[in-house]
Amino acid sequence: MATQKKLMMIASRGSLDWAYPPFILGSTAAALDMEVSIFFTFYGLTLLLKDLKPKVTPSGNPAMPMKMPFGPKWFQGLNWPMPNMIINNVPFFDSFVTAMMKKTFKNKGVASIPELRDICVEAGVKMIACQMTMDVFGFSKHDFIDGIEFAGAATALEIGSESDMQFFL
Amino acid sequence: MATQKKLMMIASRGSLDWAYPPFILGSTAAALDMEVSIFFTFYGLTLLLKDLKPKVTPSGNPAMPMKMPFGPKWFQGLNWPMPNMIINNVPFFDSFVTAMMKKTFKNKGVASIPELRDICVEAGVKMIACQMTMDVFGFSKHDFIDGIEFAGAATALEIGSESDMQFFL
Amino acid sequence: MATQKKLMMIASRGSLDWAYPPFILGSTAAALDMEVSIFFTFYGLTLLLKDLKPKVTPSGNPAMPMKMPFGPKWFQGLNWPMPNMIINNVPFFDSFVTAMMKKTFKNKGVASIPELRDICVEAGVKMIACQMTMDVFGFSKHDFIDGIEFAGAATALEIGSESDMQFFL
Repeated sequence: MATQKKLMMIASRGSLDWAYPPFILGSTAAALDMEVSIFFTFYGLTLLLKDLKPKVTPSGNPAMPMKMPFGPKWFQGLNWPMPNMIINNVPFFDSFVTAMMKKTFKNKGVASIPELRDICVEAGVKMIACQMTMDVFGFSKHDFIDGIEFAGAATALEIGSESDMQFFL
Repeated sequence: MATQKKLMMIASRGSLDWAYPPFILGSTAAALDMEVSIFFTFYGLTLLLKDLKPKVTPSGNPAMPMKMPFGPKWFQGLNWPMPNMIINNVPFFDSFVTAMMKKTFKNKGVASIPELRDICVEAGVKMIACQMTMDVFGFSKHDFIDGIEFAGAATALEIGSESDMQFFL
Repeated sequence: MATQKKLMMIASRGSLDWAYPPFILGSTAAALDMEVSIFFTFYGLTLLLKDLKPKVTPSGNPAMPMKMPFGPKWFQGLNWPMPNMIINNVPFFDSFVTAMMKKTFKNKGVASIPELRDICVEAGVKMIACQMTMDVFGFSKHDFIDGIEFAGAATALEIGSESDMQFFL
């Protein structure tokens, strides 16, 4: 019998686009019968909030290859990324892009971030909130979903050093 | 005889600056006789396109330490990063910075991204395109270079768990 | 007696927020008696400069959960992140946010980046400056702090392949 493989990840980013990697890799690894631990730190800590509303911006990311999944043909054919001048000055542009990305993933049958997070919880993925980040950014335990643990970087490193695979996301 | 070391990377970003790590680490590891696999996902998938034109922006990156490699002295001495007001409002500023970064690397004898990618292909680096990302962002197999594979996160995790080193880029 | 665990990290980003992970993970791992190596490359190379002044920007990061640690109540209650229109057009906005983040961490008793770097040096963390990046961005050995080494990606990969844990930060 093969030994169970262990995956440890540090989730450090919290925007909508970067919320997919920890939850997709986590749920996939769990489905492969791996033992998975994710340490949520810095901006990534916000992914454990009960009130989970990650946003995405094309600002600073010239590699965003999005296509408009709705609206008229001319609109769907618009080139991405948009010029900085538009991205950074049109009000609510990020809200629009966030809605668009969510819709694109939904149209393609990919689960939403809250759904993927639920799958991870149910699959027994160990999720750890970084205590230092909680303290620095002023969060309390009540802000977070149930079933998670609270620990520091030392715990993350100890788990990581016993794992077969480590990723800093 | 020592066992051949294995390196597995997940390339998730697709801008010009973040295109260097997978291809430089990949080609260097191959030169060290390591077995290398790279899984291109999310924005990183664009690095496998036939039409490879990565761009870079100083927007959102206050750590960009670039120097002007051409033009008059006063121009070369300009401080980086530029204020957001300039970065985000001057038309074609990103195109300018992209040209500047390419020129800087070229002046220093570093291969271009398409060249580095070719080196990886020739060195036998296994390059895998993420099928889910292809589907979500609307790419077809014909958009990509030859000699790559198509698979999902499960394949990436299985390769990673058998590797000596894993990086999420 | 257990074997000493080895941690290898590649620090590729150089802004204030992304300066914490290498130095916090590095100093924590050293305190856990691990052998730590950090390879500073690309924008991350600037973290080894004598003149260490990392900045942070909310631009391009909609996940910044900052709270104002000073000023009047209405000001402390402002919602983050700010609209792009403000972030990208108000002069010196990044300088303000940088000062705010430093103050927040200080108020919470977290050491500053220069202090954390000193702790790493004293704890024997091996810090390696990427020679190619030095050359491309035009730095000389005199620009950097004492006690570091200079090497290329091949050295980083060799150290990494002998380590128990690897992170690309």
